[in-house]
Amino acid sequence: MTTLATPAAPAEPRSGGREARRRARLNRSTGALHRPYIVRGIPTYDIMSEENLVRIEKTADRILAEIGIEFRDDPVALDHWKRAGAHIDGVLVKFEPGMLREVLKTAPAEFTQHARNPANSVQIGGKNVVFSPAYGSPFVMDLDKGRRYGTIEDFCNFVKLAQSSPWLHHSGGTICEPVDVPVNKRHLDMVYAHIKYSDRGFMGSVTAESRAEDSIDMARILFGEKFADENCVILGNVNVNSPLVWDATMTTALRAYARANQAAVIVPFILGGAMGPVTNAGAIAQSLAETMAGCALTQLERPGAPVIFGNFLSSMSLRSGSPTFGTPEPAIGSMVIGQLARRLNLPLRCSGNFTTSKLPDAHAMNEGTMSMLAAVHCGANFILHSAGFLDGLLSMSYEKFVMDADFCGALHSYLDGVKVDDNQLALDAFQEVGPGNHFFGCAHTVANYETAFWDSEIADNEAFEKWEAAGSEDAATRANKRWKKALAEYEAPALDEGIDEALKDYMARRKASMEDAWY
Amino acid sequence: MTTLATPAAPAEPRSGGREARRRARLNRSTGALHRPYIVRGIPTYDIMSEENLVRIEKTADRILAEIGIEFRDDPVALDHWKRAGAHIDGVLVKFEPGMLREVLKTAPAEFTQHARNPANSVQIGGKNVVFSPAYGSPFVMDLDKGRRYGTIEDFCNFVKLAQSSPWLHHSGGTICEPVDVPVNKRHLDMVYAHIKYSDRGFMGSVTAESRAEDSIDMARILFGEKFADENCVILGNVNVNSPLVWDATMTTALRAYARANQAAVIVPFILGGAMGPVTNAGAIAQSLAETMAGCALTQLERPGAPVIFGNFLSSMSLRSGSPTFGTPEPAIGSMVIGQLARRLNLPLRCSGNFTTSKLPDAHAMNEGTMSMLAAVHCGANFILHSAGFLDGLLSMSYEKFVMDADFCGALHSYLDGVKVDDNQLALDAFQEVGPGNHFFGCAHTVANYETAFWDSEIADNEAFEKWEAAGSEDAATRANKRWKKALAEYEAPALDEGIDEALKDYMARRKASMEDAWY
Repeated sequence: MTTLATPAAPAEPRSGGREARRRARLNRSTGALHRPYIVRGIPTYDIMSEENLVRIEKTADRILAEIGIEFRDDPVALDHWKRAGAHIDGVLVKFEPGMLREVLKTAPAEFTQHARNPANSVQIGGKNVVFSPAYGSPFVMDLDKGRRYGTIEDFCNFVKLAQSSPWLHHSGGTICEPVDVPVNKRHLDMVYAHIKYSDRGFMGSVTAESRAEDSIDMARILFGEKFADENCVILGNVNVNSPLVWDATMTTALRAYARANQAAVIVPFILGGAMGPVTNAGAIAQSLAETMAGCALTQLERPGAPVIFGNFLSSMSLRSGSPTFGTPEPAIGSMVIGQLARRLNLPLRCSGNFTTSKLPDAHAMNEGTMSMLAAVHCGANFILHSAGFLDGLLSMSYEKFVMDADFCGALHSYLDGVKVDDNQLALDAFQEVGPGNHFFGCAHTVANYETAFWDSEIADNEAFEKWEAAGSEDAATRANKRWKKALAEYEAPALDEGIDEALKDYMARRKASMEDAWY
Repeated sequence: MTTLATPAAPAEPRSGGREARRRARLNRSTGALHRPYIVRGIPTYDIMSEENLVRIEKTADRILAEIGIEFRDDPVALDHWKRAGAHIDGVLVKFEPGMLREVLKTAPAEFTQHARNPANSVQIGGKNVVFSPAYGSPFVMDLDKGRRYGTIEDFCNFVKLAQSSPWLHHSGGTICEPVDVPVNKRHLDMVYAHIKYSDRGFMGSVTAESRAEDSIDMARILFGEKFADENCVILGNVNVNSPLVWDATMTTALRAYARANQAAVIVPFILGGAMGPVTNAGAIAQSLAETMAGCALTQLERPGAPVIFGNFLSSMSLRSGSPTFGTPEPAIGSMVIGQLARRLNLPLRCSGNFTTSKLPDAHAMNEGTMSMLAAVHCGANFILHSAGFLDGLLSMSYEKFVMDADFCGALHSYLDGVKVDDNQLALDAFQEVGPGNHFFGCAHTVANYETAFWDSEIADNEAFEKWEAAGSEDAATRANKRWKKALAEYEAPALDEGIDEALKDYMARRKASMEDAWY
């Protein structure tokens, strides 16, 4: 393996203050990111009483103790559970109340995921909020060409768009499925694209233990073996096969990440009425049970490995029988999930801009905005699906991507909250202006206007006549222009040539060892 | 004046529970409203510390004591202030710290606004949330005919659409300006339309003292003089001429409502950088000062009259110099306003679905959803502009109206929160289903699916292929069909013929006493 420069120490987390906002704003056109992540200035929105939280926790404990969780086809996982004192009956594992909480005590409450550009390393946990693009769509779409299967070109485009946005903090993982690359090889191209076209944190593959290991190996090439063993340099997003089943694909991937001291994100995917009960409290209890088990397994594989408490609640349409995304019940349920994760002292992942809309239209942004706000209100530290999500995760939309990224920008201002100091209280401005006069040119306005308000690049605040004269464009049409402009202006962050060669060499060797598989 | 049947006692507030939701849902297609308002099941989102709230209050007190508020051209108002112990210098009134809070102690924390159908009376204050349509646009628009000036036909259409929606609770006020009716007479037609085409609560005119009195007189005809003197039967929305000026048009209207024991809604309109400072904390302090003064004036006019603490914060675009609506700073500022209103023990009005978008598109619903959620999170009791708002309040949109009303429906489920009981926790469902099986047909799902999830009429959750085969419609196109269907199916609630005649007679007499005025 090539010898590499040791990455510098991570940048100090920047304050969520005005100065950071000013710099971020002034440098927007260059695509430079001046806040590597958000440090929230407002509290979380805690909606549930202690008494009811305890009832949900006790229900999760009873699910774990009386019904149990199956761990299929992974004898190592079963062996871990046996040694930890769980009850094993075939593949069914039952847990005494309190056992998993005990195991989870070794998991860190907060950790740094390092980026190859240290200024872009993110702090996951605590008051920190990291926005990451949507993940896993087979299709992509844009206004020009409509919906079609994603390709590696699309994948690279979205990596570039994320890198170009000052309001996203992370490069994501399977931004879309590049279906023109064989299934068993595409993880190599995806990880390479994240490293090559972005200098932010990223996620690796989880669709097979070997693919997880390949992803981690590539991160080791980038960061150096020692650094990568001692620090988190890659995430892997693993799903529970809800209800109450962990299959070997996921547990072996999960263990591969933990073994390498990398962070698995543990995510039950519960559509109420299908993979869980139709009632919110029950789905939340199930989510807690499944996530605790997955998180605990990482600690049995390697105590102290970083791990993220994930969730993915959704509902079903009673009219169509279809899954729904961005509906009110999961949104409000997120607040409770947040409270439960904090009681476990684990970093929290939630989902962002959910919708079933097939277009970047009013429906898409109504559902997306509600679910994204739920994610930031509930205290999520890592928000997957922050940008691009359409059609119930089946499509990655170019236009919605830039709209969502713009909304992520608005959330930087929102999460700063309301600052209170003498300048903000502006008594001098009132003294200067007095009753009945305007504040346009007053000294306080001149001193503060530049940093006062979030300025969206997608919103059109012009007068109707001016907007009409400019072509009466809707937001999707404006977004279409913006992503094309961003791609045209994109510049790849420099990558050490030795590392680039080593990565290409690794990929070539790995690909040569496999026959193409297309399903 | 015609003698009228005394309205029945108001309906008991319904619980926010499942039964109410079930009935509301089952009767949706009939347009019947089964929850006259929402009783919130989740706490408010309090983002500011006690210490900072006190600093904002002290700043408001200093604005009131050191800078003061002008009360122009209303000697009665100045006389009220003099007797209450304020310092008067010409039209400038200054208030000792604590004085206004003392005056405000007679204002009720919660009151009922009666509707002519007692089942639709709303409780304003406390944990109650009332959704009311947008207010005041000169233009209307729809997808077929684009933007044009509003007419009395449009006005009546929106009253009918609001009445048809089970998710709005109130008929609103100046839903749009009917510009085909003379300025000095249109208030009569507007109030009549609310009474004739809706059986919910409504708002009267405030654009002149005589128009306020006409509006109240018409409410007296509807409810009977005695009932109307003892109960709130009409609201009036009065604006401060920010910064720090109350003009006579507003104070005389405000006093007319209070004198009649009707509720004025006191609303500073502060665009940061124009009518207030560009910094949020200062704009909030100003809003508090202006609103306290207006609310207190109602109590000097008639101690104990209902009054609503309103606010309308917004910002400016630094690029275009245009006002913005639905941006993050006012949204997060609303949370603080809510905390301040509760410390005064007054019912709170906030604004709902704000946007500068000229179309019912992604931009509109991104901004609208953020501002509407801020209004419900901050604890607003009366949410004006809940439906239809476009183009910075210049246009009332038929399509956005039905989209917003649908979102109001979603917020019914959202504000119910997460219920925790044995049925909701669903342990029996897990016992029945077990690991790896689905919940589709299990007993718990069958017993609960009907009431489990909000089911939007605007969202399309179908599979992409089915949506495409049905014409690939966006949300605005679906909304266009829905408002036409709602108008076609609208049935006017029966109105006592004697009352109807008396109202027409009153209007005819009042109109005959005036020359047409067109500006």
